[in-house]
Amino acid sequence: TVASSASSTLYPSDRDPPTVSGLVKGPAQRDHSLDYDNSENQLFLEEERRMSYLGFRCLEISRWVVCGLIGFLTGLIACFIDIMVEQLTGLKYYVVKENIEKFTAGGGLSISLILWAVLNSAFVMVGAIIVAFFEPIAGGSGIPQIKCYLNGVKIPRVVRLKTLLVKVAGVICSVAGGLVVGKEGPMIHSGAVVAAGVSQGRSTSLKRDFKIFEYFRRDTEKRDFVSAGAAAGVSAAFGAPVGGVLFSLEEAASYWNQMLTWRIFFASMISTFTLNFFLSVYNKNPGELSNPGLINFGSFDRNVRSLCSFCQFLTASGLLGALFNALNYWLTIFRIRYIHRPCLQVMEAMLVAAVTATVSARTHARTHLIPPCFTFHCISFLFFRPFPVRSLPEKSVQNLFHNPPGSYHPLTLGVFTITYFFLACWTYGLAVSAGVFIPSLLIGAAWGRLIGIIPVFPLQIWADPGKYALIGAAAQLGGIVRMTLSLTVILIEATGNVTYGLPLMLVLMTAKIVGDYFEEGLYDIHIKLQSVPFVHSEAPPTSHWLTAREVMSSPVTSFNRVERVGTIVDLLSNTSTNHNGFPVVVSNANGEEPAKLCGLILRSQLIVLLKHKVFVELARSKLTRRKLQLKDFRDAYPRFPPIQSIHVSQDERECMMDLTEFMNPTPYTVPQETSLPRVYKLFRALGLRHLVVVDDSNRVVGLVTRKDLARYHLGKHGLEELQLAQT
Amino acid sequence: TVASSASSTLYPSDRDPPTVSGLVKGPAQRDHSLDYDNSENQLFLEEERRMSYLGFRCLEISRWVVCGLIGFLTGLIACFIDIMVEQLTGLKYYVVKENIEKFTAGGGLSISLILWAVLNSAFVMVGAIIVAFFEPIAGGSGIPQIKCYLNGVKIPRVVRLKTLLVKVAGVICSVAGGLVVGKEGPMIHSGAVVAAGVSQGRSTSLKRDFKIFEYFRRDTEKRDFVSAGAAAGVSAAFGAPVGGVLFSLEEAASYWNQMLTWRIFFASMISTFTLNFFLSVYNKNPGELSNPGLINFGSFDRNVRSLCSFCQFLTASGLLGALFNALNYWLTIFRIRYIHRPCLQVMEAMLVAAVTATVSARTHARTHLIPPCFTFHCISFLFFRPFPVRSLPEKSVQNLFHNPPGSYHPLTLGVFTITYFFLACWTYGLAVSAGVFIPSLLIGAAWGRLIGIIPVFPLQIWADPGKYALIGAAAQLGGIVRMTLSLTVILIEATGNVTYGLPLMLVLMTAKIVGDYFEEGLYDIHIKLQSVPFVHSEAPPTSHWLTAREVMSSPVTSFNRVERVGTIVDLLSNTSTNHNGFPVVVSNANGEEPAKLCGLILRSQLIVLLKHKVFVELARSKLTRRKLQLKDFRDAYPRFPPIQSIHVSQDERECMMDLTEFMNPTPYTVPQETSLPRVYKLFRALGLRHLVVVDDSNRVVGLVTRKDLARYHLGKHGLEELQLAQT
Repeated sequence: TVASSASSTLYPSDRDPPTVSGLVKGPAQRDHSLDYDNSENQLFLEEERRMSYLGFRCLEISRWVVCGLIGFLTGLIACFIDIMVEQLTGLKYYVVKENIEKFTAGGGLSISLILWAVLNSAFVMVGAIIVAFFEPIAGGSGIPQIKCYLNGVKIPRVVRLKTLLVKVAGVICSVAGGLVVGKEGPMIHSGAVVAAGVSQGRSTSLKRDFKIFEYFRRDTEKRDFVSAGAAAGVSAAFGAPVGGVLFSLEEAASYWNQMLTWRIFFASMISTFTLNFFLSVYNKNPGELSNPGLINFGSFDRNVRSLCSFCQFLTASGLLGALFNALNYWLTIFRIRYIHRPCLQVMEAMLVAAVTATVSARTHARTHLIPPCFTFHCISFLFFRPFPVRSLPEKSVQNLFHNPPGSYHPLTLGVFTITYFFLACWTYGLAVSAGVFIPSLLIGAAWGRLIGIIPVFPLQIWADPGKYALIGAAAQLGGIVRMTLSLTVILIEATGNVTYGLPLMLVLMTAKIVGDYFEEGLYDIHIKLQSVPFVHSEAPPTSHWLTAREVMSSPVTSFNRVERVGTIVDLLSNTSTNHNGFPVVVSNANGEEPAKLCGLILRSQLIVLLKHKVFVELARSKLTRRKLQLKDFRDAYPRFPPIQSIHVSQDERECMMDLTEFMNPTPYTVPQETSLPRVYKLFRALGLRHLVVVDDSNRVVGLVTRKDLARYHLGKHGLEELQLAQT
Repeated sequence: TVASSASSTLYPSDRDPPTVSGLVKGPAQRDHSLDYDNSENQLFLEEERRMSYLGFRCLEISRWVVCGLIGFLTGLIACFIDIMVEQLTGLKYYVVKENIEKFTAGGGLSISLILWAVLNSAFVMVGAIIVAFFEPIAGGSGIPQIKCYLNGVKIPRVVRLKTLLVKVAGVICSVAGGLVVGKEGPMIHSGAVVAAGVSQGRSTSLKRDFKIFEYFRRDTEKRDFVSAGAAAGVSAAFGAPVGGVLFSLEEAASYWNQMLTWRIFFASMISTFTLNFFLSVYNKNPGELSNPGLINFGSFDRNVRSLCSFCQFLTASGLLGALFNALNYWLTIFRIRYIHRPCLQVMEAMLVAAVTATVSARTHARTHLIPPCFTFHCISFLFFRPFPVRSLPEKSVQNLFHNPPGSYHPLTLGVFTITYFFLACWTYGLAVSAGVFIPSLLIGAAWGRLIGIIPVFPLQIWADPGKYALIGAAAQLGGIVRMTLSLTVILIEATGNVTYGLPLMLVLMTAKIVGDYFEEGLYDIHIKLQSVPFVHSEAPPTSHWLTAREVMSSPVTSFNRVERVGTIVDLLSNTSTNHNGFPVVVSNANGEEPAKLCGLILRSQLIVLLKHKVFVELARSKLTRRKLQLKDFRDAYPRFPPIQSIHVSQDERECMMDLTEFMNPTPYTVPQETSLPRVYKLFRALGLRHLVVVDDSNRVVGLVTRKDLARYHLGKHGLEELQLAQT
């Protein structure tokens, strides 16, 4: 019935999947998801019940404080990146300028060009080395990683301090190195790391525990803060606080929580305000908060008299995005196969930097968006400053939007579009921190403006080709990343004009529909290449055929309420199963009937129990023994030790462990006949990690996990079953 | 343990609760909730499985078409209301002007004043009569009703065609009658009715069935469209499409659905665009789409140099709102007690109209926001046109924001604030269609500007008192309605400037915190006065003490899988229980063990079964009998006949009914020990109506419904248990 044509992924599950820009490391560290459903065991309930109303108020206030801090720090980081890029770029220009002045007399212009390329490559080399050798997960824009994290996939080291440092340094290097990249995408990842760090009140890397925010040390709370951090990142990057909130909701939200959304919005607001304020101070004009965000589009007039004239974009819009994605997909596969050693990655990055420097030097003067009405010396590109150095690509976008008609020659725009298109495509996926937003906008703005000025199109009612550029930019970006709701709002906020909302929305929709016909979105491609069990927001529409019985994994390994330690250790050590959640069952006194479900316990909880040797016999012998508390679990969070590191003696193996207090006594369950969409809805809405399937007498028959759901997928030929790595 | 001090509501449950502005009618029609969880019975699954992928695509496309239609029609209605108000107001001014010209010579100015009052009263009388006598539910702003609907409370007649007609006519009359009301709030209700009508593809009132969109005839789909309609209403009213989406999410969303949100956004966009377009045509300037929404605030500059100076508002902001709400609360109670006959309601409305006319005539000339720098004749108020007639209060708000410093005398503003405050408070809750947004903004803008110009406050660093007016308006509105997220976004979109986001947000937050300390929000007060079982987005924080066992209703009436018709009819006819959902159980063959849960069936489904006489014996005798299909249930939706109208003969009572095909075989269940927050989360996230509580052998022990959850509420003294009517 199901067209299980098994559109197998790139890597059969018996092979070790290679890594792409460090998204995942290897089989040992995969297979983890995050727990967005609280384990409401006795310890938890006792703590909650002990807490007074005032205690809850204090918690709520500290959540707000944390969100404020997240916004503030994210804004500061954005500010720091912006200023550092400006300074380094300024330094680079200065050095080359000195050199030209020295050598031009002797005619050695080519030496200057080589110096230019070498300087760029050097910057990129530094950026690539720290990414490739120290923290591969900091490569790329970070958006796929954050999408996965918010979806509930645990990607190792994605929100660590080291990742943040490498990310920030890396993005500064790659932008200063003149690569065709933006600094906006990485802001989202940076915000998320800040959030994960601040909210935990400690740094495991630095081995410092500030003993604050201990309540927040679990996946549920941490995820909420990471959503806020991602939103703050979007907000800082584009000056779009509402867009940031919607980005977080689009990627993360399952269960809508009003207070949480409001806090996310607060973090976004603080972030954009902080950035705005500090940049205004840096620009010696404190308080003039006119530039929210690292990029803004400048203001458009409200005249959209001929909205229909953008119809000519509608077909083009998705195609170019799909082409970009397809090229990048092939390139990524090539990279996975042949360029997986760090030193090769660094060399590729340097090569790209050198090529970019050469190409841009050649085309810059003639075509790099310098209006032909200016006259200038052939090498004046190095000193040419119609736009401030610090925001070169961002300013180019603005120029394409706002320069008066006639500023650009069609040929200039055409050459620029083609060059930039291929360079951007080549650049994305290099082992450097880099965003794809700004290159996409720039490519789109260029061809949009081109369409606006070449005379073959009959519908040019808009006198202003800048509006064509805006629509083109939206179309190209939408065609590449395929975000819809949040992207529309981000663009509306960046243009500062709601009147453009409807055309922008229609273009983004068309770009998505047309693009999806050919190829997935860029981020989804990169996620899929990892075989990450990504659970989409809804089940495929034609999946009512399937029921929990077909979807679930079975048989299930379960424990008795009072279980022998040896059994537990053996099961946890079994690397072939590697389960993370275990149903706890209770048999009747006479043992005749099959065991009934009475709870669910997690691997991490069992490991803490084993570590603290919470054995029934010991509890009896040492009466003064401290009772295990929730704090012990929190202290171990999130880096629970592996089972191999816990020593259990032969005597201890014969002890018993009573799980009653620690298991979640009320796990969510579904009957076997439940249809897949219904299972999916429950799973997604509550952010579950394990869903127990029971028969009509409440006996465990199976377990549905993230991977069981992520397998089903709507392909060209109906419902398909993916073969996820390690299923 | 629970402070069950039983903060009893106004109406003990043994008394028939009176109605407030027609929110509910009486016990017979209450007690219904909406089903936002699909009943996935065999019929449903068969239909879904029969449907091809193409079928799902077509469905998806028709959802988009419906949303587009909703947006378009909502925009048209907004346009119609706007134009009608302008025309009628113009007519009124014209008549009075003629009269003055005739009588002024004779010195009969008082006659003109009386004519003015009489005309206003006449308009209001018409508006009040249609509301009080024909459709009481169309009274007020409609926002509390829509909040309830989206929350899942079924309020009779709230989304009918008649309600829409009365609402539109009523709001035109009350605005044209010069009441202190806005036309923005009712737009939300109108949008919702349009959505409910369009999406069903038929009108039960007009007895027309267009045989389209039949798939959407169930609560789940209908609710989604009503969310879109409400968003389109907000969008048309304020030109705030993003704010509209967030309003819908804030009020309706439990389970975040990306495609749904995107469709809602589409409806909002279309709505604001339609309004904008048709108004531009009406104003003889087609295509000049510069005024999205019925109100916009005009553009502010981006200079927010001294953001801290609005701190002085922070204490004031919530207090005035809370005072307004408290006064209105007492007034509403008075109205419930003494003014519940329709003719009294009409008379009160006319009285308010006359008083408003007199007061505004007296203060208009001197104080009605006319800058004192103008000189004018004492009665020139009637002809005074610094602002176009059609948008008088909206224009006043804009004037307060943008008129240059020195335009208003402090005394003018003070008198205006006080007068308007009490008039607005008196007006809200009258039996007329009327919104509270514009009056709130106007009051707030007036006292905000007042604070900005009187010299006692030391922090006046903003030169421009208009910004004080903006902050004041936000504070007053926030203090009254207590919406946070959506209101911030609406105001940001109305000012068209994200720079004001942070101050607006802080003011709204403070207004909410301060206000909540004294009194609930205006809408919540009106909802609470109805004892409507409104389920808030989260369980009270200190409710971990409670478990499903304490919360649930028990014992539960359940049916066997094959049940005697007589039993079913008797149970459904039992008015004392009046249940709507019944667990279906199956006993073992030997009947020794207690019965196990095997499904859930709804009253509405049973009624359709009885109506079609789906009895086992009949099925055997007439082999050709048509099998009951999902269509039969859809045709009966949403006005299922009462059980009393179905005749079941004595013979038929002895027949058996097989529920297997029609019950939902996989209802969500929780164990008895589940904590209240966990139950709450499941209930809210999935939009449930009935949640079955089972013991560890899957036997039914209780049923949690909306009312069981709505009872718990966080009061001043911790957790309180409300006594909801009809519990």
